[in-house]
Amino acid sequence: MNERQQARRPGGRSARVGAQVHQAVTDLIGERGYGNFTVGDVAARAGVADSSIYRRWGNLEALLTDVALTRLNARSPMPDTGTLAGDLRTYAAQVAREITGPDGPAVLHLAVALSGSGPQGRQAGADLRAERTRQLQSVLDRARERGEDAPDALEVLDHVLAPMYLRVLFGVVPLTPDYVDGLVDRLL
Amino acid sequence: MNERQQARRPGGRSARVGAQVHQAVTDLIGERGYGNFTVGDVAARAGVADSSIYRRWGNLEALLTDVALTRLNARSPMPDTGTLAGDLRTYAAQVAREITGPDGPAVLHLAVALSGSGPQGRQAGADLRAERTRQLQSVLDRARERGEDAPDALEVLDHVLAPMYLRVLFGVVPLTPDYVDGLVDRLL
Repeated sequence: MNERQQARRPGGRSARVGAQVHQAVTDLIGERGYGNFTVGDVAARAGVADSSIYRRWGNLEALLTDVALTRLNARSPMPDTGTLAGDLRTYAAQVAREITGPDGPAVLHLAVALSGSGPQGRQAGADLRAERTRQLQSVLDRARERGEDAPDALEVLDHVLAPMYLRVLFGVVPLTPDYVDGLVDRLL
Repeated sequence: MNERQQARRPGGRSARVGAQVHQAVTDLIGERGYGNFTVGDVAARAGVADSSIYRRWGNLEALLTDVALTRLNARSPMPDTGTLAGDLRTYAAQVAREITGPDGPAVLHLAVALSGSGPQGRQAGADLRAERTRQLQSVLDRARERGEDAPDALEVLDHVLAPMYLRVLFGVVPLTPDYVDGLVDRLL
């Protein structure tokens, strides 16, 4: 932990390289889409050596997942409003805003790309899901500690997140606040 | 209608070309994935002129959608078992089998590819959704005519199809018969 913090201290070389690489990935996704660039392309765009990327992330799929998670955590952090209904409504509204925004359902595009890119892709996809599930689980655990009834994390995926993602993917938009709140209320 | 039937009569040249083009598309999807081949590639593989494809389908996105619909209609036809619960359970089980099979959630991959390919892609995606929704609607209409309570087609998308697709995409498998039946029962 200490080593990691030291290696990534703000303003340090490692932090700078990390930011450059993340920006390069974001740019390349915007310009070419998932599946249409390599670690070499990212390195060239970021002005770093290929080996720096392989050493830090291991492979392209893990790097893509790190970029997606950083973005998700910044734009759709798990809320803590004091009630489960409040937390899930806030979370669902954030996700709805994000996936109907200019970048669209980026996590879906990433998941599709990862699912088609072999064992490393499947591992990266599983890591992404595990990390977001862990965060959602902490929201549900807090609710149970307060004495509220809480669904499983997978039920939130099935009946709140999945409908929103599929509607965006198939062009059934907009996701109105009533619709999004309704998904949460129906689940609870 | 008559002209169309005539143009595609079994054994006719048009039917032969249609079958060759569909096969070429299926092969190219398997080998390269969506987004990685052109009308020219399909024409070369099928042994027909580019112009034959443009004349009949208009653009690549419409052709991809035609191939996907033909396949969906063959593998997951809308059932008619006499009860809504029976129809939806049968339909959900077919979809579960298909998307966990060797080709994976092909419709999701297509929808992602179409959503990223401009107005023609979005139109093709909307056409695909409209045709399958129309078929599902006929199942729901039959149920209402029998006096059964039936949900809306979009509720079936939200709470039966979307959860299965997202679970497959994020690697939360298998989709057990209990789970799939449970989605239908919960909706009804």
